[in-house]
Amino acid sequence: MSLNIAVLTTGDELINGEMSDTNTARIAQLLSAWGYAIKESRTIGDDESEIEAALRDLSSRRDVVISTGGLGPTDDDLTARAAARTFGRRLALNEEALAQIRRFFAEKNKEMHPRNEKQALLPQKALILPNRLGTAPGFYLRQGTCDLFFLPGVPGEMAVMLEELVLPHLYERSGGSAPQQERILQVFGLSEPKVEERFSHAPLPQGVHLAFGVEFPFVRVKLRARGESADELLNRAEMHARKLLQPFVFAVGKETLPGNVARMLTDTDRTLALAESCTGGMVAQMLTDIPGASRFLDRGAVTYSNAAKQDWLQVPEDILNREGAVSKACAQAMARGIRQAAGTDLGLAITGIAGPDGGTPDKPVGTVFLALSAKDEQRVQGYRFSGNREQVRRISACMALEWLRRYLGNHY
Amino acid sequence: MSLNIAVLTTGDELINGEMSDTNTARIAQLLSAWGYAIKESRTIGDDESEIEAALRDLSSRRDVVISTGGLGPTDDDLTARAAARTFGRRLALNEEALAQIRRFFAEKNKEMHPRNEKQALLPQKALILPNRLGTAPGFYLRQGTCDLFFLPGVPGEMAVMLEELVLPHLYERSGGSAPQQERILQVFGLSEPKVEERFSHAPLPQGVHLAFGVEFPFVRVKLRARGESADELLNRAEMHARKLLQPFVFAVGKETLPGNVARMLTDTDRTLALAESCTGGMVAQMLTDIPGASRFLDRGAVTYSNAAKQDWLQVPEDILNREGAVSKACAQAMARGIRQAAGTDLGLAITGIAGPDGGTPDKPVGTVFLALSAKDEQRVQGYRFSGNREQVRRISACMALEWLRRYLGNHY
Repeated sequence: MSLNIAVLTTGDELINGEMSDTNTARIAQLLSAWGYAIKESRTIGDDESEIEAALRDLSSRRDVVISTGGLGPTDDDLTARAAARTFGRRLALNEEALAQIRRFFAEKNKEMHPRNEKQALLPQKALILPNRLGTAPGFYLRQGTCDLFFLPGVPGEMAVMLEELVLPHLYERSGGSAPQQERILQVFGLSEPKVEERFSHAPLPQGVHLAFGVEFPFVRVKLRARGESADELLNRAEMHARKLLQPFVFAVGKETLPGNVARMLTDTDRTLALAESCTGGMVAQMLTDIPGASRFLDRGAVTYSNAAKQDWLQVPEDILNREGAVSKACAQAMARGIRQAAGTDLGLAITGIAGPDGGTPDKPVGTVFLALSAKDEQRVQGYRFSGNREQVRRISACMALEWLRRYLGNHY
Repeated sequence: MSLNIAVLTTGDELINGEMSDTNTARIAQLLSAWGYAIKESRTIGDDESEIEAALRDLSSRRDVVISTGGLGPTDDDLTARAAARTFGRRLALNEEALAQIRRFFAEKNKEMHPRNEKQALLPQKALILPNRLGTAPGFYLRQGTCDLFFLPGVPGEMAVMLEELVLPHLYERSGGSAPQQERILQVFGLSEPKVEERFSHAPLPQGVHLAFGVEFPFVRVKLRARGESADELLNRAEMHARKLLQPFVFAVGKETLPGNVARMLTDTDRTLALAESCTGGMVAQMLTDIPGASRFLDRGAVTYSNAAKQDWLQVPEDILNREGAVSKACAQAMARGIRQAAGTDLGLAITGIAGPDGGTPDKPVGTVFLALSAKDEQRVQGYRFSGNREQVRRISACMALEWLRRYLGNHY
């Protein structure tokens, strides 16, 4: 049975322009992994009569309502009271909820503020949904044929409660058929139409469904199957997809490109140094975002000036004069130079024209050269990326990381 | 008269987890600058009966409905047809809309695809809202007491049409009282409660309203006034607020911190070199995000290893051994070293412990030292920032930029 599901997110900050609602997309992602979809999402402010109107309307038209926000301790947290009114229930102190809040503070060795007691005031006969990450317990109500789940608005707390408490309930309600499972392959270097085309020539095993998502500059390939053999089906589908999309799959599931490069460097005990021109430190920043980056990253040079390229990377003046700083020869010299300066296993260099200015007929905006230097390999290549400054910079940085990933994959 | 306004955003990608709706927040920002607020926002997929149900319900309960999306040329663009059905109108070819689409293609010297004609099929008696940036004309309907505006989903097109076509209409409808004006001051280094406290002791000129927003690590102070003297009132309020919040205001309106630093460096013809340890290139990346950064940035060093600090920055081994890489003395030596290596006017250095590992009782996670070196000034200071790795890195990078802004402000 397919469930008709609505999301209700509340909070003044979501409709006054301060922030965009991201809970809806997060909920949709988590639901879709189990094969459920959202029909509608509503966002309203911290306004009791608006919350009441929305709950009344949604509960009469949907099978499931997932509400987020408005469960905090302050005066503008109105969801529990609005839910009680909407469905004609009394608001009463829920002892179980109170015990959970007390426990939360005790475990943190913090004193509980009296106003946190308010968070235990729930509609009568509500079942509490424990929150192990924060003070706000969620709750569940059944009204007519509608299941209503009330979760906190903090994304991390909401997501855990959705996965652990709401999804199993939906699974049971929708007949206990095994939930859909999802495996996501992340692809870089092939456009969505090209990925689709490859699959159209070599379809997946029966029972596996395919969907796509794009998050610049990556394409996500989503493999989905349900039933008892879903896991095995997805293993086969993943093998199939990997073969089809070789060598463009850089990650599975929640892995990231910099995360995988970092792991491979650490696993193989290799060290790295970077020389960045047009990306201006973006590769260094992406890698140092990862805890423990000091184990493999020795240094990075952001060499905007020619003097810096000469001093630190020993790029010959001759190359700069004859070929220019944006050239194959310069990229190669930068990679070799940074590897030698740092004494690392690998040296990686990027030089290019990110725009909007600086392009020439020969080397238009988007011209980028990458070079990799290792003991056993010297590689250099030119690209012509399209897009604005930010996009050229991002795709260049990702391509540099992808070079590292492929090199390390071949030298594991 | 205060208008009761709802937003309706449509598109499968908004409810299937692929992307978050950002149009609602954008609309709210544009509306709030004129003194209007959104009561509710709904998001539904490309589903004609869902669109109909939403339009019927919203038009019966709200004064104004602003719809975005579903005006494109493909089969899943259903908004015009759904609107025609909802309000019992025929869908007819709108000659004015067709002429606009033809003109759009002619001006770009592109051939018009026959399917783009579909975009001129609008509900009868709709007024078209011309779109000068894209192919999809918007349209306007009056139904009962409700004004409905249908705009394309592309954020840039939507925003221009909202500002140029929708807001003037709302202004007239709400009685032609002068719209609200808004001025935003961006603050770094004071928390929201502390900003609030300063205003509570020294209130703003009468007629100016105050609101706050937080976008880590910044606080936005919003000054609002309406009426014919709004501009002058806001000038006075801005002066007042600047005095109160001195020296923490780093930008007004759409200015950014790196943008202002870049402008000040360019204006004063000063050059800069960076030495980053825990921020791993984040400051370099933020500054090189700005076109023309090569005019002031000579180079940046991401010196993770001690060897890099010695080679490139001439940090004495003695300091590294005795005080450690995360110390006042090391930060100072790094700033001086990078300035000398690059021969720039300014050298800026950051060293610290971003976590999650690496903290000690003496130097816990969040310990960060900044140093600035100039001909006439050497400055160094230690901080203890709280937050996770990402937050410590971000706040450190912003603080480094803020140091530059203040130095340049004093040396203009």
